[in-house]
Amino acid sequence: MALKKKPVNGMKDILPDEMAVRDYVSGIIIDTYKKYGFLHIETPAMESIENLSSKQGGENEKLIFKVLKRGEKLNIPEAKEESEVVDYGMRYDLTVPLARFYSNNANDLPQPFKALQMGPVWRADRPQRGRYRQFTQCDIDILGESTNLAEIELILATTETLGRIGFSGFEIHISDRRLLRAMADYAGFDESSFDQVCIILDKMDKIGREGVNAELRENGYPEEQINRFTELFDGINDDEEGIEKLAEILGYHLQADIKENLLTITAAVNEAKSAEFKLVFDPTLVRGMGYYTGTIFEIIMPEFGAACGGGGRYDRMIGRFTGNDTPACGFSIGFERIVLLLLESGFTVPGTVKKAYLLEKKCGAEKLNSVLKEANEEREKGMTVLVARMNKNKKFQKEQLEKMGYTDITEIFEQEDQ
Amino acid sequence: MALKKKPVNGMKDILPDEMAVRDYVSGIIIDTYKKYGFLHIETPAMESIENLSSKQGGENEKLIFKVLKRGEKLNIPEAKEESEVVDYGMRYDLTVPLARFYSNNANDLPQPFKALQMGPVWRADRPQRGRYRQFTQCDIDILGESTNLAEIELILATTETLGRIGFSGFEIHISDRRLLRAMADYAGFDESSFDQVCIILDKMDKIGREGVNAELRENGYPEEQINRFTELFDGINDDEEGIEKLAEILGYHLQADIKENLLTITAAVNEAKSAEFKLVFDPTLVRGMGYYTGTIFEIIMPEFGAACGGGGRYDRMIGRFTGNDTPACGFSIGFERIVLLLLESGFTVPGTVKKAYLLEKKCGAEKLNSVLKEANEEREKGMTVLVARMNKNKKFQKEQLEKMGYTDITEIFEQEDQ
Repeated sequence: MALKKKPVNGMKDILPDEMAVRDYVSGIIIDTYKKYGFLHIETPAMESIENLSSKQGGENEKLIFKVLKRGEKLNIPEAKEESEVVDYGMRYDLTVPLARFYSNNANDLPQPFKALQMGPVWRADRPQRGRYRQFTQCDIDILGESTNLAEIELILATTETLGRIGFSGFEIHISDRRLLRAMADYAGFDESSFDQVCIILDKMDKIGREGVNAELRENGYPEEQINRFTELFDGINDDEEGIEKLAEILGYHLQADIKENLLTITAAVNEAKSAEFKLVFDPTLVRGMGYYTGTIFEIIMPEFGAACGGGGRYDRMIGRFTGNDTPACGFSIGFERIVLLLLESGFTVPGTVKKAYLLEKKCGAEKLNSVLKEANEEREKGMTVLVARMNKNKKFQKEQLEKMGYTDITEIFEQEDQ
Repeated sequence: MALKKKPVNGMKDILPDEMAVRDYVSGIIIDTYKKYGFLHIETPAMESIENLSSKQGGENEKLIFKVLKRGEKLNIPEAKEESEVVDYGMRYDLTVPLARFYSNNANDLPQPFKALQMGPVWRADRPQRGRYRQFTQCDIDILGESTNLAEIELILATTETLGRIGFSGFEIHISDRRLLRAMADYAGFDESSFDQVCIILDKMDKIGREGVNAELRENGYPEEQINRFTELFDGINDDEEGIEKLAEILGYHLQADIKENLLTITAAVNEAKSAEFKLVFDPTLVRGMGYYTGTIFEIIMPEFGAACGGGGRYDRMIGRFTGNDTPACGFSIGFERIVLLLLESGFTVPGTVKKAYLLEKKCGAEKLNSVLKEANEEREKGMTVLVARMNKNKKFQKEQLEKMGYTDITEIFEQEDQ
């Protein structure tokens, strides 16, 4: 029998130490979000392949793990194409499933609907260090709320969660997809270049302004437009003042409500926030997904080179399922990155008292029963109590237990006086 | 766009009410098991198809959702057989992945290793009422413990969990695979008939003794053997007395340690148990999976027609991966059935105080900010606080909120005196 010991390529076994951190983080996340009135829901890991290939998922649609048809529906010798042998796929995010869930269940849900989802997603990415093909996503979404109360609550709930986990000094970057459009318009870029300009601008934090200019040049944009575009970021503060100033420069290119939207959110978040963080107006913020229609935001951790979560408003996706546009706004907290940061910082989960009983192998029923009873009484008091047989190498066993946090180890012998 | 609103066939969306019960149940399960020193671990949802098809999974191996190969490895026009286009499969239980996990990570795990797993598994079963193709399993296993301390701790931990969820008056049926073998041997059945005799005996609770006799007869077993076999159950009490008596009847057909094993477990569990339940010696107990090698047990709920979980000792499976036999014993608690029982009984999760603020649409920034601040202070006190815009149909909105448990609903108007 040649059974494989390793997990499948690019996926991982989660050992007890990491799992303890994951349980701790997910406990705080779920507890905090529920206090904001978010309702926990779950969808199946698989979706029909048509839904996953409907162009809502961007580049992720190329990374789907596909599920083989079963029984009579499957005819491999005759099949010429993938689509003939596949009916389902593994979800690559929680947003497409949420849109389907909402369209399927809207009548049984409160309006607006505040959803909390936490679960694995799968992407057949090239495996690389620290990136896995199965990973946990954690999203909150508010469906059916058109005002920016949605954005405000999402940011407050997510930042409070980060604060309770123990983070401070992080930043929430905020902008608006429509602001990007106004800036491109102001610079003289053609509507059709918008997506490409955004993709290049998105690299600002990595290649800097000169790099962005160079790449725009390489793609054949006129020097005058490039300068007019990137000069927009000169002297723009990262606060309300910056929003006011950029809006003034953009003039008629920017609808008035976009400025008001950013100002309202900024004021409300700064007023009501409980965590220690900075809300940063960042007109270079792009966010990858094409489905955003308004406000966008991102978590930036000083400890971490990249974004640690993000989200925004996507008012037109639900309509793809229901036929009726439904306002929607979501925030995804970077669960895997948070866990990684905690593990790298040597974080240990605040724990309960841990006690262990080691029973000599020859201990009989009477000894055993009295230890079991005592252990149960201690567990009822909230302690973690391990009852185990003494190994031959008792010293190593005790060292292992101490490493696991067992501070009180009692050895039990059949003859009391040992 | 013809997007599908329904989940894929045989899987389900989990709505907030059910999810609240699931979170409540899984919270108690994880908390209780951790107090017994079980360590939470996780394995990927997919395993290599070879591991899943290694005959450890019994009938479940016919129900695997298979995952299509990707990229250059996939050549559909040339493929003649399933095995050419498939490399992974969705796990159908948590036991095969645990065996692989242990063989992969044993050096980093304490000895013995007490594992807690909770997660979805997938089976491409014929969809039917109340049975889904994705469902949650919850297993505890003790690997590397050869004495019946493993059985005792598994039964104590699982029954305490059931008690804390709110169940009482249930039964844990217990027997031993080797006892079945001794009974078949005593009756004169050939070694080679053992599996078939077990499958028929397993129906005892449904078709009764006459049914079992008839089915054995249909399968050509001699009348004398059949009688000798099923008469064994006559006048056998469901407690220590029954164990003693059956052992006496079986005589040399039964190894002495099998009797001692059942007596020790029974005494220890009855002595140390904290939940209200009955431990029942049940020599008709079979348990489906072929991998069991010793003690077997099952949860029987009076409210539920069928088993609500079970487990046993399987000392030879880990060796299939590691090459070295490792003693192993596990108990799977019937998570989905427990949730179903609670939902059907109208159970509601004991909750926190729930308060809602409904903001008139025209409320400005000042009103909004003060409400948000107040809500945050109340959340810090442990309350669930919802802040929402007032819908046009305010009456319906308030009714919905009351149904969701919001007992305190405050309406906020821009003009105070409304």
